[in-house]
Amino acid sequence: MKVPAIRFRAAGGPEVIALDELELRDPGPGEVQVEVVAAGLNRADVLQRRGLSPAPAGVPADVPGLELAGRVVARGPGATLHAEGAEVMALVGGGAMARRVNLHERELCPVPRGLALTDAAAIPEAFLTAWDALVSQAGLGGGEVVLVHAAASGVGTAALQVARAVGARALGTTRSPAKLPALAPWLAEGDGLAVEGGRFAVWTQGQSGGGAQVVLDCVGAAYLDENLRALAPRGRLVLIGTLGGGGGGPAPVGMILGKRLTVIGTVMRARPLEEKLALARVAATRLVPLFERGLLRPVVDAVLPMTACADAHARMERDETVGKLVLAW
Amino acid sequence: MKVPAIRFRAAGGPEVIALDELELRDPGPGEVQVEVVAAGLNRADVLQRRGLSPAPAGVPADVPGLELAGRVVARGPGATLHAEGAEVMALVGGGAMARRVNLHERELCPVPRGLALTDAAAIPEAFLTAWDALVSQAGLGGGEVVLVHAAASGVGTAALQVARAVGARALGTTRSPAKLPALAPWLAEGDGLAVEGGRFAVWTQGQSGGGAQVVLDCVGAAYLDENLRALAPRGRLVLIGTLGGGGGGPAPVGMILGKRLTVIGTVMRARPLEEKLALARVAATRLVPLFERGLLRPVVDAVLPMTACADAHARMERDETVGKLVLAW
Repeated sequence: MKVPAIRFRAAGGPEVIALDELELRDPGPGEVQVEVVAAGLNRADVLQRRGLSPAPAGVPADVPGLELAGRVVARGPGATLHAEGAEVMALVGGGAMARRVNLHERELCPVPRGLALTDAAAIPEAFLTAWDALVSQAGLGGGEVVLVHAAASGVGTAALQVARAVGARALGTTRSPAKLPALAPWLAEGDGLAVEGGRFAVWTQGQSGGGAQVVLDCVGAAYLDENLRALAPRGRLVLIGTLGGGGGGPAPVGMILGKRLTVIGTVMRARPLEEKLALARVAATRLVPLFERGLLRPVVDAVLPMTACADAHARMERDETVGKLVLAW
Repeated sequence: MKVPAIRFRAAGGPEVIALDELELRDPGPGEVQVEVVAAGLNRADVLQRRGLSPAPAGVPADVPGLELAGRVVARGPGATLHAEGAEVMALVGGGAMARRVNLHERELCPVPRGLALTDAAAIPEAFLTAWDALVSQAGLGGGEVVLVHAAASGVGTAALQVARAVGARALGTTRSPAKLPALAPWLAEGDGLAVEGGRFAVWTQGQSGGGAQVVLDCVGAAYLDENLRALAPRGRLVLIGTLGGGGGGPAPVGMILGKRLTVIGTVMRARPLEEKLALARVAATRLVPLFERGLLRPVVDAVLPMTACADAHARMERDETVGKLVLAW
């Protein structure tokens, strides 16, 4: 069957985004077909559109979308985990911005009770990235302090909430002073900083009384030295992006050693299927209960119609949003 | 009582080393007094002598020695773990090159059955550093490949053995081609490399068929880029020293992220008492059985009399040794 889908006609600006069609086969063994109701927009979609971040093998090369929420409309042979009509969400390697997709049933996670599908579409990438980086990889736990950069972003607002949910205290930075007030729901008084001149280590040391145990960074080389200075002894720096591009000084090996630090690099999209399936179980067993107890909530800047996908890209590139942009069919 | 001890009269060359005396009180609650039979020499002793690496708080500032083997000669109130006369070894923060020392009884580990005390003195620093870095911190396990730099050093020869003991395959490098043959007992044919021009990543990738899972590094910044290139995806680099000094290019943040690498900085000497005690338990429960089963053995380059301590320093600084230098009373 043919299904509507967002496609990139070439690498370029938002003008290469087109609403087109995609051929979709029936769901195979173990697969379910999901009618997508909404899909979250991510920076990786924008980078892919610009030709800077190709889709991994196994997903359509020109259909963006890394996360979705929708309803199960068909099940392939042996797929029994989700009933037809069940509301589900998923983190995927690409292709989420099609009206229907086939996924392995174990890639799907039930939508938390009480959440609209347009809200659920804002969960997988942001909250799984934050949970995986902070809890699974950095081992963040109760009583610790975590410094979150780009705190107003989708991952940032998720990280502030995940930190609080596991008993940690979050400090948050943004390069846009105008966004600071929007962080008030998740930060204690004084725990937000509008970064100037790339400096935040002294502030973090003072605010935390000796350094953060964990830093979540999406800037990369330009922040590396300050990030390591901001950490307490035995602290962990998790690198999830390189928005800041190159630059930065020589690698501060002496500080890594002397303070017994750990630097962890991580990406979500390039992970193999077995890890994607494991992430879906983390979503189902760890995140869903926290959403249902009200300790986490999706942060949606705006829900736009899928036909406004180019507008959504332009909005993300202007860096004006707090939380997620969601596109709905 | 007064006990003989090696002391540094000032910062400087081997000529500042003197055989002197030290005032020693009776062992306090929970402490035992050990008559030291032998002490291993470490690069940190040499750095301390040069004035580059001061002793941590709580140990005599001018008495070197980070590890010892000897016999329990007295026990303080409540010390019951080791009988008088028991042969013990220990990793300490300093002061091991005295004829007698007082230590908390839980800092001590029994000497593996069948080992001479002059051999046991070569165990704590080298094997605990290797075990802690490779197994406890990097999680090295069966079927993996580890690249060990300075493979002919005390820690290096210990790391090659620890790797094999836990089912991993070791690749070893040295900057001294003359030392390669000495590594034959612990390396498979072709798994040793005399490094030229600081390049070893391509060799490691070829030898391991896709990269090492773990790299143990004591060189620091100058090797950082090559170390990360030598790693397989999700690999772990453990930094235990900065022998190579400064230098090196900008921090390869993109590679850490893209390959999902972890960089772990670690030091042994500056650890607080609770971690030292935990290390002694690791020695007793994990290393001792492996020594007693013959899967690990101390590598002693030479045993010299304590009165030849200055000669031993000079030998270490000429970088001619394979394994450990041990000084015996």
